[in-house]
Amino acid sequence: MRHYDLCVIGSGPAGQKAAVQAAKIGKDVCIVERREVVGGVAINTGTIPSKALREAILHMTGFKHRTFFGESYKVKQSITVEDLIFWCQHVIKGEIDIVRSQLLRNNVEVITGTGTFVDPHTVLVSHGNQAEEIRADKFFIATGTHPARPANIEFDRANVVDADGVLALPKLPRTMLVVGGGVIGTEYASMMQALGVKVTLIEGRNRVLDFLDPEIGEALQYHLRQNGMTLRLGEQVVSVDLKEAPDGARADDGKLVEATLESGKTLRAECLLYCVGRQGCTEELGLDKVGLEADKRGRLVVNEFYQTDVGHIYAGGDVIGFPALASTSMEQGRLAACHMFDLKSQCYHKLFPFGIYSIPEISMVGWTEEQLTDEDIPFESGIANYREIARGQLLGDSIGMLKLLIHQESRQILGVHVLGSGATEIIHIGQAVMALNGTVDYFIETVFNYPTLAECYKVAALNGVNKMTHV
Amino acid sequence: MRHYDLCVIGSGPAGQKAAVQAAKIGKDVCIVERREVVGGVAINTGTIPSKALREAILHMTGFKHRTFFGESYKVKQSITVEDLIFWCQHVIKGEIDIVRSQLLRNNVEVITGTGTFVDPHTVLVSHGNQAEEIRADKFFIATGTHPARPANIEFDRANVVDADGVLALPKLPRTMLVVGGGVIGTEYASMMQALGVKVTLIEGRNRVLDFLDPEIGEALQYHLRQNGMTLRLGEQVVSVDLKEAPDGARADDGKLVEATLESGKTLRAECLLYCVGRQGCTEELGLDKVGLEADKRGRLVVNEFYQTDVGHIYAGGDVIGFPALASTSMEQGRLAACHMFDLKSQCYHKLFPFGIYSIPEISMVGWTEEQLTDEDIPFESGIANYREIARGQLLGDSIGMLKLLIHQESRQILGVHVLGSGATEIIHIGQAVMALNGTVDYFIETVFNYPTLAECYKVAALNGVNKMTHV
Repeated sequence: MRHYDLCVIGSGPAGQKAAVQAAKIGKDVCIVERREVVGGVAINTGTIPSKALREAILHMTGFKHRTFFGESYKVKQSITVEDLIFWCQHVIKGEIDIVRSQLLRNNVEVITGTGTFVDPHTVLVSHGNQAEEIRADKFFIATGTHPARPANIEFDRANVVDADGVLALPKLPRTMLVVGGGVIGTEYASMMQALGVKVTLIEGRNRVLDFLDPEIGEALQYHLRQNGMTLRLGEQVVSVDLKEAPDGARADDGKLVEATLESGKTLRAECLLYCVGRQGCTEELGLDKVGLEADKRGRLVVNEFYQTDVGHIYAGGDVIGFPALASTSMEQGRLAACHMFDLKSQCYHKLFPFGIYSIPEISMVGWTEEQLTDEDIPFESGIANYREIARGQLLGDSIGMLKLLIHQESRQILGVHVLGSGATEIIHIGQAVMALNGTVDYFIETVFNYPTLAECYKVAALNGVNKMTHV
Repeated sequence: MRHYDLCVIGSGPAGQKAAVQAAKIGKDVCIVERREVVGGVAINTGTIPSKALREAILHMTGFKHRTFFGESYKVKQSITVEDLIFWCQHVIKGEIDIVRSQLLRNNVEVITGTGTFVDPHTVLVSHGNQAEEIRADKFFIATGTHPARPANIEFDRANVVDADGVLALPKLPRTMLVVGGGVIGTEYASMMQALGVKVTLIEGRNRVLDFLDPEIGEALQYHLRQNGMTLRLGEQVVSVDLKEAPDGARADDGKLVEATLESGKTLRAECLLYCVGRQGCTEELGLDKVGLEADKRGRLVVNEFYQTDVGHIYAGGDVIGFPALASTSMEQGRLAACHMFDLKSQCYHKLFPFGIYSIPEISMVGWTEEQLTDEDIPFESGIANYREIARGQLLGDSIGMLKLLIHQESRQILGVHVLGSGATEIIHIGQAVMALNGTVDYFIETVFNYPTLAECYKVAALNGVNKMTHV
């Protein structure tokens, strides 16, 4: 029986970084991966494919350049699913190669199969007819999540799909219902809309992405609607039915999805994308054999060192829940590996950014206006609009904006909120200033490259300080 | 005779910011501008048009997406000068509107005409047949520079041009000689090459952009050559002649430019772009009337507060020389205005970034390896290649790289050097960490959005620290 210092279950961002960190300090490490390819959901059906899809759409539709060439401008006149998949496959393949070569370089063994605990130090890896038992001193569970599928909705591969099924759609629908205005639902809804699909987004709460700063959330909803999307907020889907398309409805395969809402409305489209909730992949882990239990959403509970109640079994990534971002998952993996082998490491700043790859792109770090008001922390906001800065003009981004939330007394930066091109990149400038205790004066006194989006920080800082001075 | 608190001569970045800063504290301000439109070289023929041209080229040639679709991929099959100019004019018009409305909003009066001192407190503004004398308490000279034109080269508007003439070329040449491997020459040479023009770049020194970190400069030269450019380094042009094209040379207008180099080589092309040196625009200022003198390159000398030897006459922007970036010019204007009206203001960090909008894009802040070695400062470098990170794959940028220079003992960041997509934006993350005294550990402990180029900071930090640890 093979024996390792560390056995990682799942090869997504969390698993990779845990494995590599342990391997770098000379430990014997294996990763057990259920799929034939490494990378987990992030590479194979989630983060990366959806971002590749987004790049492809932005380029092929000429979306970025409509300011220059008018609303009807498209690089490619007729965009097919094949075009999009070609692009995505190229990126996915590249990513898998990178991960595989990183694991190889660090002597991390990848074992294909489903891992199930048989006792607290032994995992049975089954693959088809084959099975092998593996022993290890430490374990790291990073099995991620899969889309939740409610029992009353019948998923097929053409008309009713979940996030994993978007890239396998046989053709682009003309109309689509997206259920769920969380990150995944909003990202896909905005992409489909940019592709020319008529999208209706249905969300149970009164706002999409309700953790956003309200001003940014409002701007997002405004732009989604301006781009032609219908938002149905505060609505619940109670049933989904597949119907024969009536004459004249032009659904090529003769089917239409009909969603009935609690409020009594009936919505019809060629396709329904269901994006409400994700379920931790813990069913097959044999948790009962080690004395652990997942919650009803399949998630595991860990302490600050990413240890479960069984000290030598750690967990990280989406399977432990919030914030469930690839970026934080990687850090969790690294930190778990450091802890299990007594390697000194600093906890990552609580100041992690959120990146939302909708169209338009959004990113944030720190507090929102709502939170600050709830906590009675006095702030002023400073705003910069992309259309007022040279780079915004150059990019043709007329809607982008950056908002700083500034403490009225200490002048420290409490939050940064960006909507528009490059949001997920430039947020890190504000993050660094916040983490290193800079104040709004840093932005005022700093020279930024011209023309860049980063100049927004200076414009927003001046705007905020002017408001604080001239009250 | 009209009287102002401040008269600014020149409406480029330095002049605008000086005027707006003074106006914001209630001063009566005018800007004297020679052209019919505001903005100076930055907006009308320099920074902005060249960046607009660059965006247009990157989009229309599909340059960014060749990794996906192959070398011959183009969005637009035949790119004309009209296409490019249409795009640039759109951006220029937008920029002029922004500047004009900012000046208007702040009650800055714009007076069209050439400003000439008649005495230390009076400027004569001449415009065609009209002339008017204006008095002011303070003056700010921000007249910028124009391309230097050596006497032995005959400039026309079609075959031999300077940087101001690129956007007025009647058609795209098939071949081009670019003389001067400074920022302007290198930017235009790389853009023309991307457009499919066969470019030869001639530079007197042994490196283009010789202020760059050597590793980055080398990478740039490698990629320029890989893109098909010919570099002639350590070469001087001694004469330029316009010849009738020989039969079969296919120059449509029957002319060819022939440049003879000191080394005896003869180079021929349809067009020659001369980008060596710029001359301060001080000839018409009447400096003798106020007791000032420009140096032989037309530049003015100022102290740390941007005052000339005549205390109430300030100067800033390109006309005072290094670094002559739009970004630093803006700060100079703002600081000069603060000083002249006793407004407290911090000097900007000496830590300003350089942005070079060549293809590939380059940016840097802080020290280069060469400088650190000269000063005996012990450093280690950490490198991240875009091709190893997800965002690099998504963008199809296979050549980008980010380099951190890290102090071997204090672990402080001494320099950041980036070549590749988004370089001029992401440099500001490193700049903030340097300015706020963060160490390399900041990057290791920070969570970056995934997938972003900003992740390069973490990869480079880990690379550098690994090298420092395992020596």
